[in-house]
Amino acid sequence: MNDSSPKDPNYEARVRESFARQGLMATLGASLIRVAPGQVEIALFPSAAVSQQHGYVHAGALASIADSAAGYAALTLMPPGAGVLTAEFKINLMAPGLGERMTARGQVIKAGRTLTLAQAEVFALNDGSEKQIALLTATLMAVAGREGVKD
Amino acid sequence: MNDSSPKDPNYEARVRESFARQGLMATLGASLIRVAPGQVEIALFPSAAVSQQHGYVHAGALASIADSAAGYAALTLMPPGAGVLTAEFKINLMAPGLGERMTARGQVIKAGRTLTLAQAEVFALNDGSEKQIALLTATLMAVAGREGVKD
Amino acid sequence: MNDSSPKDPNYEARVRESFARQGLMATLGASLIRVAPGQVEIALFPSAAVSQQHGYVHAGALASIADSAAGYAALTLMPPGAGVLTAEFKINLMAPGLGERMTARGQVIKAGRTLTLAQAEVFALNDGSEKQIALLTATLMAVAGREGVKD
Amino acid sequence: MNDSSPKDPNYEARVRESFARQGLMATLGASLIRVAPGQVEIALFPSAAVSQQHGYVHAGALASIADSAAGYAALTLMPPGAGVLTAEFKINLMAPGLGERMTARGQVIKAGRTLTLAQAEVFALNDGSEKQIALLTATLMAVAGREGVKD
Repeated sequence: MNDSSPKDPNYEARVRESFARQGLMATLGASLIRVAPGQVEIALFPSAAVSQQHGYVHAGALASIADSAAGYAALTLMPPGAGVLTAEFKINLMAPGLGERMTARGQVIKAGRTLTLAQAEVFALNDGSEKQIALLTATLMAVAGREGVKD
Repeated sequence: MNDSSPKDPNYEARVRESFARQGLMATLGASLIRVAPGQVEIALFPSAAVSQQHGYVHAGALASIADSAAGYAALTLMPPGAGVLTAEFKINLMAPGLGERMTARGQVIKAGRTLTLAQAEVFALNDGSEKQIALLTATLMAVAGREGVKD
Repeated sequence: MNDSSPKDPNYEARVRESFARQGLMATLGASLIRVAPGQVEIALFPSAAVSQQHGYVHAGALASIADSAAGYAALTLMPPGAGVLTAEFKINLMAPGLGERMTARGQVIKAGRTLTLAQAEVFALNDGSEKQIALLTATLMAVAGREGVKD
Repeated sequence: MNDSSPKDPNYEARVRESFARQGLMATLGASLIRVAPGQVEIALFPSAAVSQQHGYVHAGALASIADSAAGYAALTLMPPGAGVLTAEFKINLMAPGLGERMTARGQVIKAGRTLTLAQAEVFALNDGSEKQIALLTATLMAVAGREGVKD
C-alpha cells in the first residue's frame, strides 16, 4: 500500500534532525531506532517517569511515540521544504503497557499531496517476545510556506 | 448529558491520589486544577521539554493531559474499588499548541457500567484569552477485581 | 467556537441542493430538517430497512446521517465553488438506536481554509423525550478545482 | 495477531444468519462474501442509491459495510450466546469511492473477553485491479444476557 518513493533523497537525515528537536522525545527517554522510506521506529523504556497510576506506561506516552513514528513515516515521503503536522489520531489500547521495552512502528498507508494516512503499531517486549499492545491511525498534513514549520 | 452523581463520596481525594501516582504527569509538569462530579481539569505549561520539532507543544503531550482529564472525569463517577483504563481515544488538533498555558477540560458524556464516554477540550491561553486547540473523545473502561488496577 | 459567518450568502440552497443529490439519504429515508450557519440537522425514521441484527438502527445508518450532518454543517461555511469531502470520522455509540426518530445535529467546531472539524450528536426520540445515543467527530476537507467535486 | 480459534464451531452459520437479519445490508444491496475465523468480507455494488453528492459511494455506506465486516469478524471468535455491538469506530477515507465494486475486509486484531479490536480495509475494484480507499478500526463489545441481543 505504500507510496514508498522518497521525494527527498536526504529523508533519513531530515527525520533524525527533526526528531532531535522534539523535546518531548528526550523528556520521555524515547529513541529513534529506524528510518526507512514510509517507515519509522521509535522505542521507549518503561519507568515510573512515564507511568499512569497502576504502573503501566501511560496511554499518553504510548500515543506520543506512536504519533511521532507515524508522523515521521509520513515525513520520509514528503518533498523537501514541507513540514509535517498531525491533524488527528486515534489510538486503541489492547493490553497494558507492561514490559522491558515499548516499540512503535509507524508506516504510511497512503501518501497524498496534502494529507497522508499512516498507522503505528506499538509492541511490548517481555522475555524476548513481542506482543502488540496498541494501534494508532493518524492523518498527517504536509504544510508548506508556514514560518517555522519545516520537517 | 452527564450522569453526574458520584457513587463514591470520596471521589475527589480518590482522583487526587491517583493523579499523584501518574509519573508521566509529573514528568510533563502537568497539574490537576479541578475535580468535580464528571469533570476534571489539568494544566500544562509549555516548554522545550514537551515540544515537537517546530516548538509547539507535542500532540502527544496534549493527548496525555486530555486523556488523563477524560479518564479522571470518568473515575469521579465510578463506584469505589473500580479502576479506570483507557480503551481508546481520538484527538483532533485544530491549531498549534502555542501559548502560556494549555488546559485540558474533561467531562463525561455518558457513564455506563462497563464503558464510559468522555471528552476533553484543550485550550491555549494567550494574552489572557483562551482558544480551543484540540478535542479528544475517549472510551474508558471500569475494571473491577484485577490485581493492581484500582482508581 | 464556531467561525460562523457564511462566506456564501446562498449557503442554505447550496446545502439543500447537494443533499438532494445524496442518493444514500433517499435510500435510507433521511430528511434534511434544518440548515443554519455552521449547523445542520438530519432525521431518520427507524425501520427494518435500516436495522442491524437485533432490530436497532445500524451503526452505519447512524454514522451516515451524522456524517452528512457534520459535512453539511462544514459546507455552510465554505466559500462558493468549494466541495466538501470527509477525510475521516469517528463515532462513539453510547446506547442502542431505538426509538421513533433519530436526529443527527451537526455543528462546526473549527472552520479552517483546508480542514474543518465538525461534530454531530445523534439523539433518539422516545415518548416525547430525546436521549443522546451517539457522538461523531469528523475532519472535512474543502476541495477546489477538482472536476465534479462541488458543494 | 489474531486470536483465531473460534469458540463456537457453528461460527459461519451464526454470522450468515445474523447478516441476513441486518435490514440495512439488504437496503444497501451488500452481500456477505466470505466468513473465516477472525475474518469477514462484505461487497457492495456502487449505484446512485448509495451515493453522496458528487456521485462517489457515500462515506456512510462504506462505513456501514466496513463496520459490519469488522463486527462479524469479531463475532466469529465469540462464545455461543454472546451478541456483538459496536462501541465505536473510526474510518479514514483515502480516495473517492469510485469503481465497479467496493469490498470491505474485516479482521480481528485482538479478541478480548469483553472488548475486541478489529479493523476493516475497504477496496475499490477498477478494471480488474483493487485499490485501498478506506481503513476502519472498531471496538466491538461482547454482550451476554441482554434480551434480544444475540449474535
